[in-house]
Amino acid sequence: MSILNKVGEALTEVRNKTPLVHHITNYVTVNDCANIVLALGGSPVMADDEKEVEDMVAIASALVINIGTLNSRTVNSMILAGKKANKLKIPVILDPVGVGATAYRTEIAKKLIEEIKFSVIRGNISEIKNIAGIKSNTKGVDAEEVTEEKNLVIKEKKILGETLSEELGAVIAITGEVDSISFENQTYFVANGHKTLSKVTGTGCMCTSLIGCFCGANDDYFLGTLAGILSMGIAGEIAHEKTKDLGTSSFRVALIDSISKLDAKIIMERSKINCEI
Amino acid sequence: MSILNKVGEALTEVRNKTPLVHHITNYVTVNDCANIVLALGGSPVMADDEKEVEDMVAIASALVINIGTLNSRTVNSMILAGKKANKLKIPVILDPVGVGATAYRTEIAKKLIEEIKFSVIRGNISEIKNIAGIKSNTKGVDAEEVTEEKNLVIKEKKILGETLSEELGAVIAITGEVDSISFENQTYFVANGHKTLSKVTGTGCMCTSLIGCFCGANDDYFLGTLAGILSMGIAGEIAHEKTKDLGTSSFRVALIDSISKLDAKIIMERSKINCEI
Amino acid sequence: MSILNKVGEALTEVRNKTPLVHHITNYVTVNDCANIVLALGGSPVMADDEKEVEDMVAIASALVINIGTLNSRTVNSMILAGKKANKLKIPVILDPVGVGATAYRTEIAKKLIEEIKFSVIRGNISEIKNIAGIKSNTKGVDAEEVTEEKNLVIKEKKILGETLSEELGAVIAITGEVDSISFENQTYFVANGHKTLSKVTGTGCMCTSLIGCFCGANDDYFLGTLAGILSMGIAGEIAHEKTKDLGTSSFRVALIDSISKLDAKIIMERSKINCEI
Repeated sequence: MSILNKVGEALTEVRNKTPLVHHITNYVTVNDCANIVLALGGSPVMADDEKEVEDMVAIASALVINIGTLNSRTVNSMILAGKKANKLKIPVILDPVGVGATAYRTEIAKKLIEEIKFSVIRGNISEIKNIAGIKSNTKGVDAEEVTEEKNLVIKEKKILGETLSEELGAVIAITGEVDSISFENQTYFVANGHKTLSKVTGTGCMCTSLIGCFCGANDDYFLGTLAGILSMGIAGEIAHEKTKDLGTSSFRVALIDSISKLDAKIIMERSKINCEI
Repeated sequence: MSILNKVGEALTEVRNKTPLVHHITNYVTVNDCANIVLALGGSPVMADDEKEVEDMVAIASALVINIGTLNSRTVNSMILAGKKANKLKIPVILDPVGVGATAYRTEIAKKLIEEIKFSVIRGNISEIKNIAGIKSNTKGVDAEEVTEEKNLVIKEKKILGETLSEELGAVIAITGEVDSISFENQTYFVANGHKTLSKVTGTGCMCTSLIGCFCGANDDYFLGTLAGILSMGIAGEIAHEKTKDLGTSSFRVALIDSISKLDAKIIMERSKINCEI
Repeated sequence: MSILNKVGEALTEVRNKTPLVHHITNYVTVNDCANIVLALGGSPVMADDEKEVEDMVAIASALVINIGTLNSRTVNSMILAGKKANKLKIPVILDPVGVGATAYRTEIAKKLIEEIKFSVIRGNISEIKNIAGIKSNTKGVDAEEVTEEKNLVIKEKKILGETLSEELGAVIAITGEVDSISFENQTYFVANGHKTLSKVTGTGCMCTSLIGCFCGANDDYFLGTLAGILSMGIAGEIAHEKTKDLGTSSFRVALIDSISKLDAKIIMERSKINCEI
């Protein structure tokens, strides 16, 4: 079966299994994350008190940890939930939002990776470099380095992703104009997406939540990560086509709409994997 | 006057009195709750620090307590605000989101009910069963049991709602495909709504906020609860008609739009109360 | 150059410089604030833990402090970030949401003003009166006093704004049906806007975030505040024209859309500054 057929089937699995995706996430984009999980066919739950996160993750199919609005109260909850998920073989997905922007974020991301075995880590190039211990210029939480020539970026993403994947045993996804998804010594490149995605807050967080849904419904996390990133990129393209010049908020509505209308046929027709850049 | 006429008048009262509805609620759906309160004609305020909740509730017309993202910091605020509201005869409405999913939620819901006299409790069948001390399978926060035959469900909702209402002295609303609203030995059934409501996060929370508005403008909390649930169901139907196949995010926009355009005539024409199922 | 030309240029500067606007704000309207900052051309970051706010504000171009859901945990973060911003000459904008509604809010607003030098304070008449130590009837967080005759209101806003500006060395913006922006002994009046802005939560917060963007891209904070308030008012008018009777949630989508499509020409054509009321 082709990889795109598998992605289509993974979507069907999400819709059939309605995986419960437990999020410990930020308060900025949490509503969009919940709605995009529902739109894809999953079931979101957001709970972050240390008194209940272990119970909650125990009934979940996946755990998403997002450090967008990191605070002392929830760090311990993240660790408790992550460890419990590890014990129960529930996949844990990390979105290291803004790591590198402050010493605290860098320290906490490091701590999370030490204490929890992640199945997937998704970030932009600057965040993933930071996780890998490579210095990078981060400006806020949305930054991407765009200093290098495109082919170099592609090559760098492959090396960075695969090296970090080997080191951590996790799927590493680096999103940007071209997304890379690496596991061990394999890397997919995805060229879907639209630049308006960067004008709506939380498209990265939402992408991570989609990955959570796919990984909650299928044990192949490499496939699940690819499926999540393809879904987001394709939805961005459709949203742009539907809303053209209406503005960024109409785009955002159409983005979640498109996820709710996504099917295997659309994935098959629109996916741009491994294409020549 | 017919009950539907009374609901129509209750809406007019909300619009004339602009009740201030104080919420101590979760950070996932809080924005939609605030916007739907404004759309109906109320005025929302969200404040959760224990240093100010008593002052805030003292100027409010109703208090909504929603445990969606329960945490140790706000539990005490909920109790302080609830007790103050009781003292001032301000109605308190409980949305026991996800109770039963974790031991912590069950414990806190129990504690809230012991310490605060609620005017209304709204939940799905699994949440209300849990409040009543009946075991139920809850999966996350959005679950509904759908194992039984429909007539049995109706009958069970009536018995459960009326028994719990007698015990707690509160209006008990059990929402689902058919909603029931019970007070003492009386139960209304509402068959309005649309299945897409379950594909948008927070439609339960928003429904509870609407109940808060109605109860803040009119002392008849049985009527207020019925009015809130009818409003949500009707808005869901209109939203579906307006957005058809656009997707779940367009539906969500149309849902709040419909509340802002709701009037007595629409309520009269569309309400399905006590109809044969 | 006319003031409107300057506002148009200020918008261009936001788009060219992409100022990073650090927010310590409430969890009700935070997503809309982030999206409207992106729509205008800025870059939002929301971080509130005391362990990282100083690092975050150090890489930002402006700091917005909004006390909408004030709590003990973030008050200290606000003070740390504010003091750091002052040291680095980064403008700090205060939105004293609901000050006067509770003793706690009044106390904290006072403390913030004592500890931090604000470049801009934006509120409604009741909030600004409260900051100035004048008693005012506040009901919740959205209240505006509408007891006085319109000309008196205008005159009062000028006196209040200029007096407070002299006292605090800050630009004082009082938004309402007519907005006033005062600095030292000068006041602009803006008559743009639409009444539906008051039916969407967070339009005040969003306006403050827009001011944050402009002040992060241009050292003239009086101009930046005027630009933010004009942008919001004009966007409200366009949103109403586009959505007419659709409802308040469509209006909200169109509002952020309009900010993303705003340009110098629209500002020039639509601004109503200093006009006779």
